[in-house]
Amino acid sequence: MGTTQITASAGVPFIDIEREFAAPRALVYRAYSDPELLKQWLEPRKYVMEVEVWEPRDGGRWRYVHRDGQSAYGFHGVFHGPQTEERMLQTFEFEGAPGHVSLESVDFIERDGRTLVKNHSVNQSIEARNAMIESGMAEGIEDGFARLDELLERLAEPAGAGR
Amino acid sequence: MGTTQITASAGVPFIDIEREFAAPRALVYRAYSDPELLKQWLEPRKYVMEVEVWEPRDGGRWRYVHRDGQSAYGFHGVFHGPQTEERMLQTFEFEGAPGHVSLESVDFIERDGRTLVKNHSVNQSIEARNAMIESGMAEGIEDGFARLDELLERLAEPAGAGR
Repeated sequence: MGTTQITASAGVPFIDIEREFAAPRALVYRAYSDPELLKQWLEPRKYVMEVEVWEPRDGGRWRYVHRDGQSAYGFHGVFHGPQTEERMLQTFEFEGAPGHVSLESVDFIERDGRTLVKNHSVNQSIEARNAMIESGMAEGIEDGFARLDELLERLAEPAGAGR
Repeated sequence: MGTTQITASAGVPFIDIEREFAAPRALVYRAYSDPELLKQWLEPRKYVMEVEVWEPRDGGRWRYVHRDGQSAYGFHGVFHGPQTEERMLQTFEFEGAPGHVSLESVDFIERDGRTLVKNHSVNQSIEARNAMIESGMAEGIEDGFARLDELLERLAEPAGAGR
């Protein structure tokens, strides 16, 4: 299992996340761009995640909702520029704080059949970046990437294997 | 005439621009949100500016093109969150460099019938921010704001004045 590296240096509004996956880039990109697959690894433990729209293309929109028994938390944004196996780029907005937007790029770098995923998130202020870190995002990210490891393993199995 | 203050501090990917205008906030917001008025002050000296779309509302799109005899330079983005007399927020992308996006907020602060405009631009890297500064943006901004002074003066005149 890979190690997740989260960097939030003092004095800049960036969050950088790096994680390697034991799968070729085309497969990792499928897990990021297909809304059915996305839900299988990105859904948090405590919530049901409903992916309402996920259009990874220039100008495409996305929106998903986390629900538990009482509440619903919506998130949405817009994909910017070409979305490819090399790079995705989107805005990110929590609907509980409208107008507070971050800009997130994901680079997919393949080497020897494995894929390094580099997530670079840019916030409007250092304060907003710090609040994001303090919200306890790290645990959710680790969980999600562990499920992504498992999903990629299943996707890599030849059809009919394991019967 | 107001003084434009442009700040690009070392070590952060921000550009901050402040300028005061001798007009109430409602009028300044009109000049920013109405595409017909926008063109009257934002059009650069050397180009014809065509505003193709300008939809200042949550999720609305914008696109304009600068043309001279030989070339056309397109720019576009998406408005994020509520767009009001207090604040606008949009992404900004030059079509010559697809996927290089910045996030721009504009705050309008009224005091004693005058309006302070605070523009905060966030780039994906410090290098991208520096490239924007080195492109000679300052001159264009000063020109535009001088034309905005004139436009606001005309808009403030009572109908039929000057006959």
